[in-house]
Amino acid sequence: MPHPLLLDSTGLEAALQQFADARDWNRHHTPKNLAMALTGEVGELVEIFQWTTEDESCRVMDDPATAKAVRDEIADVTMYLVRLSSVLGIDLNAAIADKLADNARKYPPPPADTGA
Amino acid sequence: MPHPLLLDSTGLEAALQQFADARDWNRHHTPKNLAMALTGEVGELVEIFQWTTEDESCRVMDDPATAKAVRDEIADVTMYLVRLSSVLGIDLNAAIADKLADNARKYPPPPADTGA
Amino acid sequence: MPHPLLLDSTGLEAALQQFADARDWNRHHTPKNLAMALTGEVGELVEIFQWTTEDESCRVMDDPATAKAVRDEIADVTMYLVRLSSVLGIDLNAAIADKLADNARKYPPPPADTGA
Amino acid sequence: MPHPLLLDSTGLEAALQQFADARDWNRHHTPKNLAMALTGEVGELVEIFQWTTEDESCRVMDDPATAKAVRDEIADVTMYLVRLSSVLGIDLNAAIADKLADNARKYPPPPADTGA
Repeated sequence: MPHPLLLDSTGLEAALQQFADARDWNRHHTPKNLAMALTGEVGELVEIFQWTTEDESCRVMDDPATAKAVRDEIADVTMYLVRLSSVLGIDLNAAIADKLADNARKYPPPPADTGA
Repeated sequence: MPHPLLLDSTGLEAALQQFADARDWNRHHTPKNLAMALTGEVGELVEIFQWTTEDESCRVMDDPATAKAVRDEIADVTMYLVRLSSVLGIDLNAAIADKLADNARKYPPPPADTGA
Repeated sequence: MPHPLLLDSTGLEAALQQFADARDWNRHHTPKNLAMALTGEVGELVEIFQWTTEDESCRVMDDPATAKAVRDEIADVTMYLVRLSSVLGIDLNAAIADKLADNARKYPPPPADTGA
Repeated sequence: MPHPLLLDSTGLEAALQQFADARDWNRHHTPKNLAMALTGEVGELVEIFQWTTEDESCRVMDDPATAKAVRDEIADVTMYLVRLSSVLGIDLNAAIADKLADNARKYPPPPADTGA
């Protein structure tokens, strides 16, 4: 059964490969190093939320400076994540589709309220 | 100027919203909580690489059991990341395109070797 | 000026060195690897709190099974952190004393309320 | 059986409590928030090692500026970790002693080479 299309990272994978090629960065982009770089960026993202309440965390995009920081950090995390997946030769869409199906089996939804 | 298409997460965002709706999980999915969940999954991903050498980290997909673990963890990280971006109302493709342009300015490529 | 005694990790550093010696683990305990192992354990610790409210997070020790998980994860994080400091030859107490003094300068306390 | 003395954090716990009291920070220091702050500081520590080789990571203390950064980040991580343990009312030394004993059972050392 073919996987549904959930995430298309083709363009980003190509852009990141070109970026690394142009700077001779491929030898630094081992999976081990990229996993560490991902950690670092996630740390920067988490710092934005560490002293907010849950309610405040829902409104971080209301402040332009914080909104820019959140967008930038989420972008950084995404780029390292997609780069890691790419150098490992993973079909990211297939990996996500398979895991989402696993999760649906692991956490079955409660029966719908029929209102009857 | 319109953003180039680097990442299309439309399908995944819709699938994750539907998943949360069916399980009444939206109230748990605050940005603060999702940032923490992202951290947890990144920790599980990093654990796979912590005792490997850089060379070994390039070959983790050769072992079927490790390959499955890597795929699963990368999928989990991606799902929390895209869910976080989605609940914050971020246009993930635009955020990535803007940050990649910033990075290109910050790290200009060296002049191409003309071989002259 | 001598540093005040804030943290004495002498016993733990010796115990962890002995532990690594007995298992021939020293060659795996590079700072890079230990920093990754630290990340992994922090991820496991954070997972305990990811869906709790702040209030609930204050009461995690009331449940014996959760309390044991929290104690174990905090112990794991501490051991990798102290091991990392140790292999780097850092005087952990001095590092903490210096940083705490920096923080006190960076965040001066508000003037005490004299009630006058 | 009493626990061996591995880590004495009494002085640091008192200093951090005093620091928080003087700045009215106790209400921000929930376990959930401290776990996030810990993540952020670990991310900053990991960033120092992300592009180094394992060999280079063993020599980071040779460069004064990097050495200071490593010391500072390790101190920050330690302070949030000890603060988290403290607000949870954990006996950190006992937690470590118990976990180290568990680890010794889980990873028994190989028999000593008698050279016979």
